[in-house]
Amino acid sequence: MALVVEKYGGTSVGDANRINAVADRIVAARGRGDDLVVVVSAMSGETNRLTSLAHEVSDHPPARELDVLLSTGEQVTIALLSMALNAKGCKARSYTGTQVRIRTDSVHGKARIVDIDDARVRSVLADGYTVVVAGFQGVDEHQNITTLGRGGSDTTAVAMAAALGADECRIFSDVDGVYTADPRVVPDARRLDRITVEEMLELASSGTKVLQIRSVEFAGKYRVPLRVLSSFEEGPGTLITYEESSMEKPMISGIAYHSDEAKLTIRGVPDEPGVAYQILGPISDAHINVDIILQNVSAEDGTANVTFTVHKNDYQKALAILHETAERLGATEVVGDDKIAKVAVVGVGMRSHAGIASKMFGSLAAEGINIQMISTSEIKISVVVEDKYMELAVRTLHKAFGLDSA
Amino acid sequence: MALVVEKYGGTSVGDANRINAVADRIVAARGRGDDLVVVVSAMSGETNRLTSLAHEVSDHPPARELDVLLSTGEQVTIALLSMALNAKGCKARSYTGTQVRIRTDSVHGKARIVDIDDARVRSVLADGYTVVVAGFQGVDEHQNITTLGRGGSDTTAVAMAAALGADECRIFSDVDGVYTADPRVVPDARRLDRITVEEMLELASSGTKVLQIRSVEFAGKYRVPLRVLSSFEEGPGTLITYEESSMEKPMISGIAYHSDEAKLTIRGVPDEPGVAYQILGPISDAHINVDIILQNVSAEDGTANVTFTVHKNDYQKALAILHETAERLGATEVVGDDKIAKVAVVGVGMRSHAGIASKMFGSLAAEGINIQMISTSEIKISVVVEDKYMELAVRTLHKAFGLDSA
Repeated sequence: MALVVEKYGGTSVGDANRINAVADRIVAARGRGDDLVVVVSAMSGETNRLTSLAHEVSDHPPARELDVLLSTGEQVTIALLSMALNAKGCKARSYTGTQVRIRTDSVHGKARIVDIDDARVRSVLADGYTVVVAGFQGVDEHQNITTLGRGGSDTTAVAMAAALGADECRIFSDVDGVYTADPRVVPDARRLDRITVEEMLELASSGTKVLQIRSVEFAGKYRVPLRVLSSFEEGPGTLITYEESSMEKPMISGIAYHSDEAKLTIRGVPDEPGVAYQILGPISDAHINVDIILQNVSAEDGTANVTFTVHKNDYQKALAILHETAERLGATEVVGDDKIAKVAVVGVGMRSHAGIASKMFGSLAAEGINIQMISTSEIKISVVVEDKYMELAVRTLHKAFGLDSA
Repeated sequence: MALVVEKYGGTSVGDANRINAVADRIVAARGRGDDLVVVVSAMSGETNRLTSLAHEVSDHPPARELDVLLSTGEQVTIALLSMALNAKGCKARSYTGTQVRIRTDSVHGKARIVDIDDARVRSVLADGYTVVVAGFQGVDEHQNITTLGRGGSDTTAVAMAAALGADECRIFSDVDGVYTADPRVVPDARRLDRITVEEMLELASSGTKVLQIRSVEFAGKYRVPLRVLSSFEEGPGTLITYEESSMEKPMISGIAYHSDEAKLTIRGVPDEPGVAYQILGPISDAHINVDIILQNVSAEDGTANVTFTVHKNDYQKALAILHETAERLGATEVVGDDKIAKVAVVGVGMRSHAGIASKMFGSLAAEGINIQMISTSEIKISVVVEDKYMELAVRTLHKAFGLDSA
């Protein structure tokens, strides 16, 4: 008899029929003898509906009140799923984040879980109930309702699995696992049976939206056995692992990409200590996250050039800040480009294989795709290219690294 | 500086515009220097929407889960109203029943308030906030969410006012006070400036739906100064008082009516001790509430006849039970009639005035309205008539007692 935490996202519980389908899955799992804690999100569309209501009464709703409002979304789902389970003869009880004591800090809208009081859940499980928990929400030390931010239900599930020492945490969504590349772009993409947590993290940060990155970090920290599977089809999904077995490991696990970023460059800055901080400090002060950062020195005049990428939503704001900085530092030029895409090859196998980078660059060159920026980590090589080449680059690399035939 | 509890019902907070209008009222009251605790219901239509969702997944939703579901309705409203208030520069914070510790028993769906922890509300008020509280809901000793049943938000407001020793509890709705009769039936009906709590109770139990009867009982018990007023128009409303000043008191305060009941009669029952219990016990065991009960003895054969009224929803069930009882007791006949209406005159003045009953019966007779049953309390005389005469009876009595010209 295993203790399993299952998480169902918004589309999986989008209406009464789907809630009933989820209940059927849970009844089947109970029939196999497992104890279940089920974490659910708000029904799809509900969070947007509530957010629209908020903006009808306030241009800048206070974060505390927004959390009170949005947390009702999951509360509706836990009640409905518990009702559906009881109607099918499966004893079930629902719990809000407050009731199950998912204690968080007080950063409304993106709170972090501090602690879960697992005693209550254990006692309800021991009484033979399936425990249905509202994802995405918690309670701070002053009994204020908090939310973990969008996608936070994954984090709730992983944290619950960690607190309970669950045998497995299953994340159900509308995709049936982690793929070597987005199947919409690469028809030959294959589902991976296993992937290491590091690879998963790199894929997530490169735009493959199977799991929230925070939940993957959390799972890695507590070594929670995590499986991604489809709530609409049967299948084993993809298991996220914490140990590489390099014997069977291919060099590259997958290709990630996205086009959410824009690139900014400041040229002709005096090359002296602290220049990166002087340029990026004001960007950070404006709460703009920076992804890739490159700094090099011009061979001609010894001045520095700094290039970095930000989310497209922050592009105009970052550009304005950079123009001010350029004036202050006496830089010669500021240029920006929001027609870019990032493509990355990811794989723990590259630690032990040489030549991945040159193979990647060569394949792209053969297709006439110019590389604007390069950034590398231990298990990932990212390149920035003109956005119109994004899909071609993904398909080229998928084929070059043999992912379609492995 | 007064401490005032205000309660706004579902139609008063039915959409963003109305929520903003309520916020404007609150800002104005704050401007007059009052401290405010505001209790709100779910937006109109929301409770029905949630109930429908429940019935899509379960024919008999467990009461505990229904409370988890329905309590989200008020939670949405408190968040939105707090946002609207903050947007207008009025510091406000929202609290669910759980957060403000409205402790109830564990009877899901119709829980009773046991206790309110007023310390938290007082401390938030002292910090200069307007406190926005979810009506209709509480929490039991096991941290389960409970609801007080439909209309329970009035009870929340009165209980909160009692716990805080508030100077006044104002119930805002779509009517601007208590009338001598329903203005839709009697165009000359007048709004009463004051009414005693006993009269209010009798009017409420006779179908005048201005306030939930439980909240009036609660207000009477704790002597909470209660005022009923319109959220859509300015006006003083009606104040519910706890002392009669018989000098100024008219004999009759108002005419109440409804047609929600049906009448059942069992005839030819042996007239022996316990017969009423033998007849009404099985009805009560089936959780059917009985209103008027009449028992008398036939002059001819010395057998007893018992007549009583029940809600129309329970009519068929009660009839079936009564047929079984008749067989068991050897009664001669069971008859039922659901085409009846109840009309009542109410007034504490009748304590000190003779002749109210004969005036009532005489006026109805003059219009050719036959009286089927009569029931009296200290401050109310109710008659049952054929339902087609209901409105005529109300208008006739309103005029006969001079309510249109007082």
